[in-house]
Amino acid sequence: MTCIINTMRLVTLEDVRAAAAAIAPHVVHTPLLTFDSGLLIKPESLQPIGAFKQRGAVNALSRIPSGDRERGVVAYSSGNHAQAVAYAAKTLGMPAAIVVPENTPQLKIDATRAHGAEVFVVGITERESRAAELVAERGATLIPPFDHPDVIAGQGTIGLEICADLPDVATILVPVSGGGLISGVAAAVKALRPDVRVIGVEPELAGDTAASFAAGSLVRWNAHDRARTCADGLRAEPSELTWAHIREYVDDFITVSEDEIRDAVNQIARRTRVVAEPSGAVPVAAYLNRSLPPGPAVAVVSGGNIPPSLLASILG
Amino acid sequence: MTCIINTMRLVTLEDVRAAAAAIAPHVVHTPLLTFDSGLLIKPESLQPIGAFKQRGAVNALSRIPSGDRERGVVAYSSGNHAQAVAYAAKTLGMPAAIVVPENTPQLKIDATRAHGAEVFVVGITERESRAAELVAERGATLIPPFDHPDVIAGQGTIGLEICADLPDVATILVPVSGGGLISGVAAAVKALRPDVRVIGVEPELAGDTAASFAAGSLVRWNAHDRARTCADGLRAEPSELTWAHIREYVDDFITVSEDEIRDAVNQIARRTRVVAEPSGAVPVAAYLNRSLPPGPAVAVVSGGNIPPSLLASILG
Repeated sequence: MTCIINTMRLVTLEDVRAAAAAIAPHVVHTPLLTFDSGLLIKPESLQPIGAFKQRGAVNALSRIPSGDRERGVVAYSSGNHAQAVAYAAKTLGMPAAIVVPENTPQLKIDATRAHGAEVFVVGITERESRAAELVAERGATLIPPFDHPDVIAGQGTIGLEICADLPDVATILVPVSGGGLISGVAAAVKALRPDVRVIGVEPELAGDTAASFAAGSLVRWNAHDRARTCADGLRAEPSELTWAHIREYVDDFITVSEDEIRDAVNQIARRTRVVAEPSGAVPVAAYLNRSLPPGPAVAVVSGGNIPPSLLASILG
Repeated sequence: MTCIINTMRLVTLEDVRAAAAAIAPHVVHTPLLTFDSGLLIKPESLQPIGAFKQRGAVNALSRIPSGDRERGVVAYSSGNHAQAVAYAAKTLGMPAAIVVPENTPQLKIDATRAHGAEVFVVGITERESRAAELVAERGATLIPPFDHPDVIAGQGTIGLEICADLPDVATILVPVSGGGLISGVAAAVKALRPDVRVIGVEPELAGDTAASFAAGSLVRWNAHDRARTCADGLRAEPSELTWAHIREYVDDFITVSEDEIRDAVNQIARRTRVVAEPSGAVPVAAYLNRSLPPGPAVAVVSGGNIPPSLLASILG
């Protein structure tokens, strides 16, 4: 009998360094911005697609063998991953087919099409099967949103940049959904600086990974419960691969309330002049409302794709 | 008879390079962000005080001889210059006294005090005289908002960064008020890349420098007329020193309407996830509504200190 989880290969610092070299021409090296005397933010909302997911998508596509590139890529997503893959495909000159559920906002469909991708709108339960059909028909490569080492290594470049730009960082706060972002960041940071504390942050209403962390093994919440939070980018759950990284490298978890998340969106705009979506604001909510270890902290503000009317209502 | 204007020493590339070295530890090297396929923005709203003026202030203070530093600095301003000098003084460990007119929003007074500066609130007509008194009483150094070579050289570092980060830049759009920003940017850019077009942008309602440029000599508008624009950071007028730089180095001027400015604030937030104040959005308004020379353009988004309620009303 093979114990799969113990032999699962985790992403290494070398993987993340290779990803950094591959994606450098196609992503923004986001600056650290002062939130207050104790916190800097890493504003991934400043990426061209408005979210960190561009890093993982560009890295994953850059690693597709040249012979497979003309057959293109396929992704299914209602969120930032769709735009990330469409953007990466355009950037690297590959065709992209994106499968989105029928409840996806027209704005996001239009943005995905604007990057030159072919968009397939399907029933919510048909996303995976339609994507699988496209992969089979075209011989295309499926790009998962988080459950892949190349995607994780791409997201990990955020950890490299933080360690390079703030050598005395003590704590890094990272939003957690499927876990690709924190897996990459933690793998890179713990290899470089084992003393830095990497803390996952979730909405209380989608706190399944915090519950898993407390229990020491994966706890599953049903999708309906996870969908209650306004942080619509944080409704996924970890895979075996991301959970293996989290268990190995993450130091702690914090959960925050819906009111705390909305207040953090407001404070980020006022103090740093950056637009954050609720999912991107959760680490700042943790900083504002919970005790952290001493020393300089960095919050990864993972994205800024918030409907302008929602931002207006939070600011007004 | 001496013709002062012809012998006025203009800021050189070497001055700007020295400024870049002096201010590097204390300012953000702002990234270029994609607005659309033809325009990148240089988001100076991401500086800790929310505006480019930190660059000039830090450079000017860094050049005060060590024997004069303990007597501190004085500035008068109702706007971003107050916070810029307060921030620079705190950063470099000098006392700062800031004179503000009585109609200054409490939010800005609080922000200036938060940087550790002493704030003097006076009648609008007493600003300069009270500042002069403080300089005389304390032996402090007066830091003007734009009419000084060290301030201009500091702002010019934006030009260096643009040329380094986008070697094929063809056009740079810069907001114009007192002219310190465009003087520094144009002096640096024209020394490095004489083929790049540097274009000043003003609100139609405060288009005094555009009028001067068309006339070939300084045209003065009264302060009441210049105060009609919503772009409250663009109501000043050039000095002899900044006008000399503008006449020598700037290629063209564009003016934009109040509606175009508000729409640009909206588009910047939506497309780049950056908060811009009306004064910072005018170059994007020029891009969206006027014809530009061919080739990649950069808009210097000079600041993001907009009242949240105004931003909400523009977004909503």
